[in-house]
Amino acid sequence: MARDEASSSNSTSADPSRTSRSRDKRRLTATTGLAALSLDAMASVAYGPEAIVLVLAAAGGNALGLTLPVSAAIVVLLAVLVLSYRQLIAAFPDGGGAYAVAKAHLGRRASLVAAASLVIDYVLNVAVSVTAGTAALTSAFPAAGRYTVWIALSVLALITAVNLRGIVSSARAFVTPTVVFVVSIASVIVVGLVNGGSHSVPQVDSQTVGTIGILLVLKAFSSGCAALTGVEAIANATPQFRENRIRRAQRAEVALGVLLGAMMLGIAALVERLHIQPQAGVTVLSQLTEGVFGRGAMYYVVQVATIVLLALAANTSFGGLPQLMKVVASDDHLPHRLTRRTRNGVYRNGVLILAGASALLIVVSGGDVNALVPLFAICVFIGFTLAQVGLVRHWSVTRSHGWRRRAALNGFGAVLTAVAAVVLTVMKAGEGSLWVVLVLAILVAAMELLARSYRRTRELDIRTAADTSHPGEHPRHSFAGQGLAVVPVSSPLCCATNDALHAARAFGREVVALHVVIDGDSVREGDTAREGDTAQEGDTGAAIAREHDDFASEWRRYHPLDRLVEVRAPDEDSVVDVLADHIATLASNDDVLVIIPDSASDTRAKLLSSGRADDLERALKRTTHALVTRTRTNVDARRSTSIANVRR
Amino acid sequence: MARDEASSSNSTSADPSRTSRSRDKRRLTATTGLAALSLDAMASVAYGPEAIVLVLAAAGGNALGLTLPVSAAIVVLLAVLVLSYRQLIAAFPDGGGAYAVAKAHLGRRASLVAAASLVIDYVLNVAVSVTAGTAALTSAFPAAGRYTVWIALSVLALITAVNLRGIVSSARAFVTPTVVFVVSIASVIVVGLVNGGSHSVPQVDSQTVGTIGILLVLKAFSSGCAALTGVEAIANATPQFRENRIRRAQRAEVALGVLLGAMMLGIAALVERLHIQPQAGVTVLSQLTEGVFGRGAMYYVVQVATIVLLALAANTSFGGLPQLMKVVASDDHLPHRLTRRTRNGVYRNGVLILAGASALLIVVSGGDVNALVPLFAICVFIGFTLAQVGLVRHWSVTRSHGWRRRAALNGFGAVLTAVAAVVLTVMKAGEGSLWVVLVLAILVAAMELLARSYRRTRELDIRTAADTSHPGEHPRHSFAGQGLAVVPVSSPLCCATNDALHAARAFGREVVALHVVIDGDSVREGDTAREGDTAQEGDTGAAIAREHDDFASEWRRYHPLDRLVEVRAPDEDSVVDVLADHIATLASNDDVLVIIPDSASDTRAKLLSSGRADDLERALKRTTHALVTRTRTNVDARRSTSIANVRR
Repeated sequence: MARDEASSSNSTSADPSRTSRSRDKRRLTATTGLAALSLDAMASVAYGPEAIVLVLAAAGGNALGLTLPVSAAIVVLLAVLVLSYRQLIAAFPDGGGAYAVAKAHLGRRASLVAAASLVIDYVLNVAVSVTAGTAALTSAFPAAGRYTVWIALSVLALITAVNLRGIVSSARAFVTPTVVFVVSIASVIVVGLVNGGSHSVPQVDSQTVGTIGILLVLKAFSSGCAALTGVEAIANATPQFRENRIRRAQRAEVALGVLLGAMMLGIAALVERLHIQPQAGVTVLSQLTEGVFGRGAMYYVVQVATIVLLALAANTSFGGLPQLMKVVASDDHLPHRLTRRTRNGVYRNGVLILAGASALLIVVSGGDVNALVPLFAICVFIGFTLAQVGLVRHWSVTRSHGWRRRAALNGFGAVLTAVAAVVLTVMKAGEGSLWVVLVLAILVAAMELLARSYRRTRELDIRTAADTSHPGEHPRHSFAGQGLAVVPVSSPLCCATNDALHAARAFGREVVALHVVIDGDSVREGDTAREGDTAQEGDTGAAIAREHDDFASEWRRYHPLDRLVEVRAPDEDSVVDVLADHIATLASNDDVLVIIPDSASDTRAKLLSSGRADDLERALKRTTHALVTRTRTNVDARRSTSIANVRR
Repeated sequence: MARDEASSSNSTSADPSRTSRSRDKRRLTATTGLAALSLDAMASVAYGPEAIVLVLAAAGGNALGLTLPVSAAIVVLLAVLVLSYRQLIAAFPDGGGAYAVAKAHLGRRASLVAAASLVIDYVLNVAVSVTAGTAALTSAFPAAGRYTVWIALSVLALITAVNLRGIVSSARAFVTPTVVFVVSIASVIVVGLVNGGSHSVPQVDSQTVGTIGILLVLKAFSSGCAALTGVEAIANATPQFRENRIRRAQRAEVALGVLLGAMMLGIAALVERLHIQPQAGVTVLSQLTEGVFGRGAMYYVVQVATIVLLALAANTSFGGLPQLMKVVASDDHLPHRLTRRTRNGVYRNGVLILAGASALLIVVSGGDVNALVPLFAICVFIGFTLAQVGLVRHWSVTRSHGWRRRAALNGFGAVLTAVAAVVLTVMKAGEGSLWVVLVLAILVAAMELLARSYRRTRELDIRTAADTSHPGEHPRHSFAGQGLAVVPVSSPLCCATNDALHAARAFGREVVALHVVIDGDSVREGDTAREGDTAQEGDTGAAIAREHDDFASEWRRYHPLDRLVEVRAPDEDSVVDVLADHIATLASNDDVLVIIPDSASDTRAKLLSSGRADDLERALKRTTHALVTRTRTNVDARRSTSIANVRR
């Protein structure tokens, strides 16, 4: 998985020398790396254990006694994953995640599956983190519960806006929230387990386990796997660590595993101790905190820390997905548009796609985090599996010291995560996991097709460039400065018309000003039939006809040197079509440049404009070979100029 | 009010002669006119009585005995309105509604209030009709109740799509649904009142009426006024009737009043007879029908007839609002964009604005018709009042035979509707009526401001056109064919580049091909710092640098005659800015035409393109005075041409 640190990928770096100078300072130690890159994994604690409790509670109160054993199984999987990723850090110190590993060792198709999984995973991370943050908020302030979807969408809009502007943030900014969150959760667990009351853990009814046991455990396990999302972040960002980066990153990875495991087990133990039952509108974490500290200041500290951490976790996707899409687009598997950045270093298209897809998920799920969590882990585990299978290939190719042991560990991890991925998909089939698989398949197919399109276009480009390379062979080649410049003009004449005529004189062999005369009679006729219900419509036609008699004389007065051609149209609605037809005729014999007079230079002018220039440009591009351009006359500015001229 | 028949305003009429020939056939008789234009008013029966019942039921079961008296009061108001509008038909046989009447007799400000009320009224008509239709649907099929908002939005999307395509429909299409609906409701009422059981109407507890009586009655009356929306439609569409149109329209208006009044009273009587209590998820009309006929075939006939009629009622707004906005825009009070039609006669911008605003209302109200109905009648009554006050002025100016009597009737009507408008606003203050008044005020202010902007722009246009009218006086005027044509080129050269160079030769005194060289070193540096987590990034910089050494020689080989200028950029992200800067320098001394090579000729090509041409065009328009145009090279088509050339 290529999830990396938001700070580095999203920062503005227009000046490379400055970047390289400050780079060393910004690189990570094991501690800051842990804080900055473990956000995502830590935040999973807010929804992972809850997912387990929800499944078990549905099977009856006694089944809740399985919370600790199921959590323990997940922590075992976590341990294998952490050890496996320790090896990935050593093997791929340049980072890059599942996509890079699969591309290097498993072929194009596997790398596309990895890329598509990552895309889905990033989108779900945003949706899950934002809705989980909203759930934490509405747990603390139940009055806000009615507006869940709106709150979630507002938070998403805020994060999107920040990322569209381009954020300059350092890893250090993430240290405080992470530390506050971990300390908060730790104190809940410790105080809870020490003082939590005299309730004994209820005995599990063995018969219940006997009948629905295995399925129930698998289902709870599948749900809890959501807590493992984010474990890969440190390995993917290895290049961001300071010198001796492999050691530092490995240490951070292990520390992440220990912290996450301890929190998982602690929360599970506390759930059983406090006999937590899922409750609509209140998160399990909120219930635990309230049970331990009551609704005092400490409760709000924990909730706020959770909300902040979840918002930051959502933010990491905004750093990672656009960056990943850029890399995949460079390989022709996504539209090249995604490789472009704005001037302040933002992959705008990627950010907008991520925001749109997450918003869709939030709306469709009704802002319910528990509807989204079951979908989350599937793609994460596909990524885990591909990365580890790739590693097994890596070791068997390099055959470095101890490669058998390493390959065995990664192979074992791959089997575990593959089995988990299958279990997740099967167990969650009723909750939408098949949709995830379907979307994954469509994404992979689309990526394949796109690459084929690019290849084909490139071959065509090369061939056609060679074909028409010699001037003179072009079928419509004309001599220098021999094109025709056409200016559509309308009444009243204004400074935009003057600008367009000026440009036409500069670029055309000949200037043709084109004016549409509306057939006055049919206007009156047609308009009455259509718009007879408005009293004043009757005069309009006559007014237009009168206007036309004036136009030719106005033209002779102001532009005596430029040729005016008048064409007839039956009514106002067909003006654009008549112009386009006439210009198409001209363009079939000549090189034609159409210069549309336009004063829509700013937002206000665009609001006021009739939009006819837009329609004409569209029609010309659709139906003619002519080159089309528009003046951008700023009437307000021209006014001050012209007044200044008069004064001089 | 200018609400007119959807058929005439929205039909395609590109060929005026055909329109005028078929016009006579399409004109309305009293009967078809009644059917086609009373849709809206008839449809009100589906939500008006329900609004009364809701208010009364909230005051306790006994208060429901007030349903019939309140309905009777509304029918009295209806009678006055119908008589008043009979006179309006005679006075304004050209139709035009409150806007035209107010404009003719009450001045600009009053006409703007009328126009703004109409705009709001049209939007609310769509939202109310669509949600009421959805309520009828979910009453019949309760399983669909969870998806209310989605159903309403889908229906809205369907109506919008139909109207965007441009519908060709005749008044006759509306006859059948209207007749089926009226007959259905009539049979429910008749069968219900005859067979409805032996329940006697419960006696109203006089004490209840005594304490909360007056307020309650006013509140119920206000709610029920929603049933009067649409009464103005016939008077507005008078020109669409056949010869002797005043008589025919008057007859249709009176018939509408009689039918609507009878249905109102019948439903009210039936509500009391059957002891209907409002029920969540089921409309009152559905309860009545079920009470009379059971859930048999007849029940579904009535529900389907209601749904169809409501959908058609929503559709009338799509005929009316864009048409009204066009008229108001022609008076400079709305953006001129709204005056333009597509080739098949659709006011697309108006249709989209209406759809967007209605969708917003549907989403915000959660698809609940009873949340929207209280807002509906306010603007309708403002329109009623303005139209009638205008008529009083009309009579006092014309002083035709019996003008005093007529003025008195309209004056009485105006007082009644004005009082009703005030009562509506005050009574519904808690349910959002103040929002309606606020939006109304904002709309009126915006219309005023817009007209001022247009006036100012027009004055400027005239002055500046005169100022720069003589060629040679223009500060940057150059001689014929003396402009510079600039073509930004990139590697690999392709047929779009050839097309652009060809055009540049045709329109420029001189051709400058502009190529950006990326500083290889800083690319490698910058990219590693930013994208260090992708393994393959290291080579990119070197690859780009190599590409550049090749470019100049490639250029010399293919385009030996055209001048190539190379400019340097620090990295990929700044290519667009560097080009724009260089062109800005050229454009400050010369007339410059920038021709951007572009092969994005269709949707597929747009998807594949990198978007750099878009960015460059935007940047050039923002920062330079140059004219900007793009080639539209169709690579696929060129390929077949070039292959054909080779074969020849």
